[in-house]
Amino acid sequence: PVEFHEDVLLSMSTPATSHVSPSFIPIFGEAIELLRKIFLTAKGQPFVVSGSGTLGWDMVSSNLIEPNEDVLVLNTGYFGDSFADCLETYGAKVTQVKADIGDRPTLEEIHNALVSKRFKAITITHVDTSTGVLSDVKAIANLVKQYSPETLVIVDGVCSVGSEEIRVDEWGIDVVLTASQKALGVPPGLCILIASERAMNVFSNRKTPIKIMNSYEGRKGMYFATPPVQLIYALHTSLKQITSIPLEERFQQHKEVSNRIKDSLEELGLKFVPKNREVSANGMTAVYYPEGIKPTDLLPRVAECGVVIAGGLHRKIASRYFRVGHMGISVTEPHRKHIEKTIEALQENLIQLGYKYK
Amino acid sequence: PVEFHEDVLLSMSTPATSHVSPSFIPIFGEAIELLRKIFLTAKGQPFVVSGSGTLGWDMVSSNLIEPNEDVLVLNTGYFGDSFADCLETYGAKVTQVKADIGDRPTLEEIHNALVSKRFKAITITHVDTSTGVLSDVKAIANLVKQYSPETLVIVDGVCSVGSEEIRVDEWGIDVVLTASQKALGVPPGLCILIASERAMNVFSNRKTPIKIMNSYEGRKGMYFATPPVQLIYALHTSLKQITSIPLEERFQQHKEVSNRIKDSLEELGLKFVPKNREVSANGMTAVYYPEGIKPTDLLPRVAECGVVIAGGLHRKIASRYFRVGHMGISVTEPHRKHIEKTIEALQENLIQLGYKYK
Repeated sequence: PVEFHEDVLLSMSTPATSHVSPSFIPIFGEAIELLRKIFLTAKGQPFVVSGSGTLGWDMVSSNLIEPNEDVLVLNTGYFGDSFADCLETYGAKVTQVKADIGDRPTLEEIHNALVSKRFKAITITHVDTSTGVLSDVKAIANLVKQYSPETLVIVDGVCSVGSEEIRVDEWGIDVVLTASQKALGVPPGLCILIASERAMNVFSNRKTPIKIMNSYEGRKGMYFATPPVQLIYALHTSLKQITSIPLEERFQQHKEVSNRIKDSLEELGLKFVPKNREVSANGMTAVYYPEGIKPTDLLPRVAECGVVIAGGLHRKIASRYFRVGHMGISVTEPHRKHIEKTIEALQENLIQLGYKYK
Repeated sequence: PVEFHEDVLLSMSTPATSHVSPSFIPIFGEAIELLRKIFLTAKGQPFVVSGSGTLGWDMVSSNLIEPNEDVLVLNTGYFGDSFADCLETYGAKVTQVKADIGDRPTLEEIHNALVSKRFKAITITHVDTSTGVLSDVKAIANLVKQYSPETLVIVDGVCSVGSEEIRVDEWGIDVVLTASQKALGVPPGLCILIASERAMNVFSNRKTPIKIMNSYEGRKGMYFATPPVQLIYALHTSLKQITSIPLEERFQQHKEVSNRIKDSLEELGLKFVPKNREVSANGMTAVYYPEGIKPTDLLPRVAECGVVIAGGLHRKIASRYFRVGHMGISVTEPHRKHIEKTIEALQENLIQLGYKYK
């Protein structure tokens, strides 16, 4: 769970406002513009849709892939499995390159798969929340450009947009899908997707959705489905905050805080799910419990200290690890002391539970 | 646009709360239980999903209908057209019974269509927001029971749930889909759907979603997609308010206020889109502008009086009529004087614009 800024929460309780109200239209319009900045794209088309991040999989599967087309899924955990399930539900033929838990497919493995047949698309989970593994999107996109340039590069950025470096235009990404409730710092309920011009040309039924977004960006309301007005006010507030400092600085802050957290946990003698720092996310950390400590021991105790850490999610190791989020205002607003409180709460409670380190 | 209760808006700004937090789980669980009361069903399965009402069409089209199956769509306006489009996108073969603008298909027309072939489902727009026409769901469901009992009865209740009488079990309805932002009085962003046991048996891939809902109803968290926590808090608040008085009373209040509004507008000499009271919705009224008055004249003036009325939506007559909502707290909490203010604002501004009545 990510903490939300007070101003974002205040925007959530905006009184009833029509989606074609003159007070809402420019807010939605500017939010669309600001998303281009977040994704570092000049001409990518942002979509802001009522839904979960999961809906982004459906948007990709139903609009970009036709039944029986081949898709290459790079799998670094639970979310790779689920994206593959979703694609198959819509009729895609999925080939997976699976890494061991805590690792990511090597560029050689990806290259070999990529040239084995003609893939309509390749999907990359930028950060798989279930393992805390970070994929090297830049290198993979580069590989695709070299060896299979017609393949669309699709990035599941639910757990990465806003906390990891991601450059849509420079790296040559075709789709990034994400959700509001992670590093974008907005309560859950928005599916956010950006599509390159190339991806837009593939969209089988793109007329209505693009018309809606273009209309709002041109500061004119239009009806298709009722947009979630309050969530879009909250998104606008958060995007204004995020873009008020250079993105480079934001990426750097997340890297520094991530290293600080990981160093501290390592000093406590704890082991991580990702096999090394290079394959580790900068917005979260997946940590194995030390021997003898159970989820039901640690999580409620830490919660009592006002710190929320999450249980395991990857089916094979679910009860053996926990997850710490460090993204958004917890990172960019150090006066909140979220990071220090989290490290302290973990340290103190592990000791109270009898854990001996060093 | 529907006004939201202050307590509902306050719930919208609930600070960051995990979807498996012990404080959220019972809220979601109770919201699911309360939905059964709203829909007057003992065993219907409620679904609360992040999305717009439009997503409900996708849920029906993708889960209940297989490609090439026949569906009968009763069309009373824009939303009938769009539901048909959605069904066809998923491969259904759609037969439509279309009424003239302001009217609804007769029971005889529906009967004739119903027995012409074997339909997997029939869809009814309970209230088509684009025309203000009310369908007689009870009579249609009864017709289906008599002449085509295997056909699933699907109700688009976006503009009716919470303002019109609707009895899932008693009338024999299989699906009602709706959204949060109309008479349920919650900001937009939730798609709410109820499915009968019979519909649940048809769901092609029902295991995951039903597990999630059952898990929360049993007061245990479970992960599929991140639920929109803040919107669900708001839904819970609103459902508690709605169910605090008998539903019968709520239906009656909406009928009385609707008649009062319609009587007042008739006294002003205005004409309605629906051809008579019998086919008119109780939660909204679609009204033709008097001759010589344009949307750009009336709407902004009324807005300046603090009253929001909506423009036309039905493509063929969009610029010739406006829509007044009268549902939710505007009806059930008369001390807010929303109804009086709306009638006054219309009357005063029409006169100022040179309209002469009687």
